[in-house]
Amino acid sequence: MNEFELIQHFFTRSACAQGGENILLGIGDDCALLQIPAGQSCAVSTDTLVSGIHFPEQAPAFLLGQRALAVAVSDLAAMGATPVGFTLAITLPQIDTPWLQAFSEGLSAMALQCGIALIGGDTTRGPLAITVTVMGAVPQSRALLRSGARVGDVLCVSGALGAAGAAVPYVVGERDVHSLPERVQQQLLAAYWTPQPQLELGRYLLGKAHAALDISDGLLADCGHIAKASGVSLQIQQTQVPVASAAEQVLDAHAALQSALSGGDDYQLAFTLPASAVAQVQHDFPAVRVIGQVCSGSGVHLVNAAGQSVAALRRGYQHFE
Amino acid sequence: MNEFELIQHFFTRSACAQGGENILLGIGDDCALLQIPAGQSCAVSTDTLVSGIHFPEQAPAFLLGQRALAVAVSDLAAMGATPVGFTLAITLPQIDTPWLQAFSEGLSAMALQCGIALIGGDTTRGPLAITVTVMGAVPQSRALLRSGARVGDVLCVSGALGAAGAAVPYVVGERDVHSLPERVQQQLLAAYWTPQPQLELGRYLLGKAHAALDISDGLLADCGHIAKASGVSLQIQQTQVPVASAAEQVLDAHAALQSALSGGDDYQLAFTLPASAVAQVQHDFPAVRVIGQVCSGSGVHLVNAAGQSVAALRRGYQHFE
Repeated sequence: MNEFELIQHFFTRSACAQGGENILLGIGDDCALLQIPAGQSCAVSTDTLVSGIHFPEQAPAFLLGQRALAVAVSDLAAMGATPVGFTLAITLPQIDTPWLQAFSEGLSAMALQCGIALIGGDTTRGPLAITVTVMGAVPQSRALLRSGARVGDVLCVSGALGAAGAAVPYVVGERDVHSLPERVQQQLLAAYWTPQPQLELGRYLLGKAHAALDISDGLLADCGHIAKASGVSLQIQQTQVPVASAAEQVLDAHAALQSALSGGDDYQLAFTLPASAVAQVQHDFPAVRVIGQVCSGSGVHLVNAAGQSVAALRRGYQHFE
Repeated sequence: MNEFELIQHFFTRSACAQGGENILLGIGDDCALLQIPAGQSCAVSTDTLVSGIHFPEQAPAFLLGQRALAVAVSDLAAMGATPVGFTLAITLPQIDTPWLQAFSEGLSAMALQCGIALIGGDTTRGPLAITVTVMGAVPQSRALLRSGARVGDVLCVSGALGAAGAAVPYVVGERDVHSLPERVQQQLLAAYWTPQPQLELGRYLLGKAHAALDISDGLLADCGHIAKASGVSLQIQQTQVPVASAAEQVLDAHAALQSALSGGDDYQLAFTLPASAVAQVQHDFPAVRVIGQVCSGSGVHLVNAAGQSVAALRRGYQHFE
């Protein structure tokens, strides 16, 4: 089977390459063609996962397919965009048919869940790496940016944090996941491998939130991006940060909190909006929690219940550090 | 310098990240935002270059930056699309400031030449690889596809072929480029490292050509894509294929022809159109050559001056073979 037949077989025929109402032309020509609806802009984001850096070399292919797409689509959610299509650039050390089959099934499962279609890509030989570029549509001039936070806004997160970070030692094999109760195993591994892009919430927040992003590097690190882009400071009340129960099951309270603050990989949204809007948002999305507020100044400041500053620890994963 | 500062420094501030009239939001948020003009579709293509597979590990960074973007933009040219923006996913083994500086300058040089802006991407650690995803705009329902060739059309190429293929032994160091006259060195290396996306011709062919693609894998292999997608056969007259003079300078006549037929990497366009349109096209684009015709049947058939079938040799580079 040569390169072209490989692409043909595994990706053109995969479930995620079928349909998509805004896909005018899918895989198989020099370019794919998308229709961005009138009055909307095209939102674009690219994410790369490298074997041995972003996932273990022996990662299950189905889960890897799910995660590679989910982390990219999460960026569309953070802008309030509706997914349209994605390209997949995959570099493989060799052809491994069962691996490719499982990978494409995982990719398709997440694509169908997110309503996004595979429209093209490139298959190359080399060390295993996956680059996904997602495209979505968002109403013109209404996208959720990092730069819109206003002094007086409250800071919210879309759900509990820390489970994905707590899962990492089990994912990479430093700890034996089978030593855990089955329910905890499932919660932890799902948090890491199948993050749920907050698409519904992102669209809901259009016209409501002043700033938003998805938490990929860790709450503190990512809130730092909002603070910097908006020219404000963010005060986070440590006791209000919702810690995932799966993290609390495998870590002591301090370590679970640290995972929630800095672990990353949860792909929940952090956003700011007027305090007056919170009640309705929490009614419609009960998992949303207020964790702090937007102040003048700069940086991210963690405070305890008494309002005293607390030293933040590690501020999220950064390559090359 | 951490990952974020790295991206900030080398790419956000690079010349190619500035401006772009259809760029509503560039690098720095969860997504970039593009404006696709009313009445146009968004054309998308992704290409990956892997170190040691698609370019030598010691490739000059400036030239690599130029080439990585050019080969991707060439796919926009092949559809008749106008470039808008691109994302860059680059995986690096370590931070090498002079290398990154030279790479971003090469990337910017090609971006400015093509009128396309860097809008985002991802910088990761790992074996050197570069994935570029380009987006362009093309009038709705008018894009040049592979599938539109009609029996009776003539088959054309946009210019001479074979120089990039002839350059490969010099690029990878199998042969010493300094043994060649300086003019030939320059022609050969330019053909490989700085292919010129045929954007002006692609746009010109909208409404004129019935089918088009860019020649990346080799003339015979790529014409096979047109034949298959269109449900026709293509007859190519071997004596009409324009062979690049740089190829003829370093190869014997037979080998130079083989490079033109199968070498790939030239990024000229192959296209079909009614014979009645050829004179005007050649008047406006004098490098265009008629090399064959579209017939019923299937496959690509090479014939000699007497119209006799000639066995084709290697049909272009395919990964994994």
